[in-house]
Amino acid sequence: MTETITMADAKAIIENQIEELARRNKEPEWMTKIRYKGLETFEKAPHRDPIISEEELLQFIAKPEVEGIPEKIESLDDLPPEMKALLDRLGIDEVEQKYLAGLAVQTDTGVIYNQFLKEWEKKGLIVLPTEEAVRKYPDIVKQHFLKLFRADESKLAAYHTAIWNGGIFLYIKEGLKVPFPLHLFFLIQESALAQAPHIIIIAEKNTEFHLIEGCTSPVLTRHSLHLDMTEAYFHEGAKGQLTVLQNWPEYVHTRPMTRAKIGKNARFINTTVTLGSGKSNIGDPHYWVEEGGHVELNGIILGQKDFYVDLGGRMFLQGPGASGINASKSVIMDESKVITRGVIEADAPKTKGHISCDALLMSDKAVMETYPGLVSRVDDAELSHEAAIGKIREEELFYLMSRGLDEEKATQLIVKGFLDPMLKDIPMEFLVEIRKIIELAVSGGM
Amino acid sequence: MTETITMADAKAIIENQIEELARRNKEPEWMTKIRYKGLETFEKAPHRDPIISEEELLQFIAKPEVEGIPEKIESLDDLPPEMKALLDRLGIDEVEQKYLAGLAVQTDTGVIYNQFLKEWEKKGLIVLPTEEAVRKYPDIVKQHFLKLFRADESKLAAYHTAIWNGGIFLYIKEGLKVPFPLHLFFLIQESALAQAPHIIIIAEKNTEFHLIEGCTSPVLTRHSLHLDMTEAYFHEGAKGQLTVLQNWPEYVHTRPMTRAKIGKNARFINTTVTLGSGKSNIGDPHYWVEEGGHVELNGIILGQKDFYVDLGGRMFLQGPGASGINASKSVIMDESKVITRGVIEADAPKTKGHISCDALLMSDKAVMETYPGLVSRVDDAELSHEAAIGKIREEELFYLMSRGLDEEKATQLIVKGFLDPMLKDIPMEFLVEIRKIIELAVSGGM
Repeated sequence: MTETITMADAKAIIENQIEELARRNKEPEWMTKIRYKGLETFEKAPHRDPIISEEELLQFIAKPEVEGIPEKIESLDDLPPEMKALLDRLGIDEVEQKYLAGLAVQTDTGVIYNQFLKEWEKKGLIVLPTEEAVRKYPDIVKQHFLKLFRADESKLAAYHTAIWNGGIFLYIKEGLKVPFPLHLFFLIQESALAQAPHIIIIAEKNTEFHLIEGCTSPVLTRHSLHLDMTEAYFHEGAKGQLTVLQNWPEYVHTRPMTRAKIGKNARFINTTVTLGSGKSNIGDPHYWVEEGGHVELNGIILGQKDFYVDLGGRMFLQGPGASGINASKSVIMDESKVITRGVIEADAPKTKGHISCDALLMSDKAVMETYPGLVSRVDDAELSHEAAIGKIREEELFYLMSRGLDEEKATQLIVKGFLDPMLKDIPMEFLVEIRKIIELAVSGGM
Repeated sequence: MTETITMADAKAIIENQIEELARRNKEPEWMTKIRYKGLETFEKAPHRDPIISEEELLQFIAKPEVEGIPEKIESLDDLPPEMKALLDRLGIDEVEQKYLAGLAVQTDTGVIYNQFLKEWEKKGLIVLPTEEAVRKYPDIVKQHFLKLFRADESKLAAYHTAIWNGGIFLYIKEGLKVPFPLHLFFLIQESALAQAPHIIIIAEKNTEFHLIEGCTSPVLTRHSLHLDMTEAYFHEGAKGQLTVLQNWPEYVHTRPMTRAKIGKNARFINTTVTLGSGKSNIGDPHYWVEEGGHVELNGIILGQKDFYVDLGGRMFLQGPGASGINASKSVIMDESKVITRGVIEADAPKTKGHISCDALLMSDKAVMETYPGLVSRVDDAELSHEAAIGKIREEELFYLMSRGLDEEKATQLIVKGFLDPMLKDIPMEFLVEIRKIIELAVSGGM
């Protein structure tokens, strides 16, 4: 990164990208107009990223792909040896390895999966790449696209608005209960200009679903900046789960933006497992909760090397009886840094909110900061928070070692015991890998 | 407040005040130079007050005294009737009422107190108005004045630096244990240009003391802006307590600034009781704690009417084994607002910190916000926090009422039970009044 990119350069690049996306996606004009709105506000929108300066952002725009990552990986042998070795250590079999390395995605399974989904489309489940949804369901998309964010609220939001690509559109018809988890992983789109998927979730009344994004293995990503935006709408009585798994290499910066409206008696459980050594700043997520609604944000964090995560989350308990839980458990190794900033605001009677934050610091260069916030504007809300930051207790370690375990095994056991209560909502197929990653990480094997 | 005061006007006023203070105090040149440094930085220093805008600050500078407050009160009958009635309701006898109304301060007791202190001066206890200390102990003051703050860190700090007046200088010689509490209340100085006392506390090795500032009755104050600055130095093994009692009327804005260095194995307990309906913003207090040192910040808050308090406090646990507790209990009535923002940073091994924040909201227009922060930069610190915001539980109320108490008495009892654990360090003579104020406030009698 030596060349200087000016604001004018960046804007010209973004404009080209908008034109290319509009053409490639055969996009209706109204969507291209929205993109141009993003471009217009980009220059003036505030930029307050804790890691990426404005200059760096302009660099990412000019040069979204990382050098040194193989252009095309056609067999597992093309993988960098460290990654191949890691997949072996994780005990992942060859078929699965192919998926994880991105080799199998656009091939067989994608097709099978799509046919499977076609059956369900008749019952009222729509799962489409967002670009396709724009063409196929313009009215629904128009009503829900960029309604929980404003393009001008930040440079990253403006940039995302201009060049978003990929992502899924999930629509669940009233009353439909989807009995299997949906893996967004299998819907990865063709290589993009920049990685900025836009996810729209619309759960109509009394629906049920579980969406899983990402995967536990460090995917070979060619982009260092990932700007997801998720907008979720839960109508009365809808129950949904969104599980996000992230395991990024050092050079990846993720800036997921998530906002959700949780209607009357609806329920949203949002679990994020963040592993690896990437840099994440979970923008300024908002959750608006109506009467009797419930939202749960669960964060499981295992940071290695110079991993960095800044985990926000603002819940607005707007209707009587609304409730929210924001809980995180972090294991912080090496020179990692974890910051949590959950806030719960009680604006209606009989609301309840709880924030908890627990962290194990595994190195004297690891840093944990927690700044929870509670705001009560009514006299009969119940809000509470608790946090504990510490290290593994020597007594615990000695006890396990006196039972015959070596220090490494004892430490692994304690870390797993610490994180386990948070992993209750993770599907079994991921749980095995996550536990393995924890083991390897703690013993320095990753 | 209709006239517009420009920055240039304000600076000219401040300059006049500096000249007047220098003359009045027969001030050595070095101190007047410090004042001018405050004036110089005033314009550029940042101003980020949550309540007072920059324009309002300039107004306060131009017109520090409030209209409608009697110029001179010579007998209790000159008190406004509400205040007289309140003193009666508090059950305070006539002699005490005179002190509380400020009638008795500069008379008999002041003199007696001063003679009493002269005896102790021989043993190594120096208690002086800060202005006098500047003349009498210039070397000690020079070493400690404005060493924990910078004049340019905020407009309020700059303004204080320029026009500080009043306050006490407390010096305790090595090994001296002061067996009686020192009441700063009895040391109020002649009417000032603005209310900006500067307090310096120097506790040499292995000393002990307890300093009490303020009083529980709403003192008749002629100033709406109070800018105290406290700098406290605790040397090895020193043990000190600072109890601040505040009960301000609506029109008073207090902006106390407190910073303390707590040396090896020293101990500082700082308890603040904030009552009434004034507006407080507890700037950006810092507590630096060395090896084995301990600091405790206790906040007891009872807010009425449109009371506002923003309670900060940043503790830096810098030495091995240092510890800190930041605890507050708030009872928030009417349209009051309480914000707490304690932060504890662990920068050395074996440090321990705990933040707790409990609040009872007594009205649906009362607002509580809490934003505690924990920062751990070492792997064997133990940090934790907890908070609970709620209202009086109906079951508790019903239980007490079923035992024959009416609702008012039952509520009083619950509120007292809630606050009581925090009042352990309050001297008995104040405790009686504080309890009475709580009773009266809860039953709407204040």
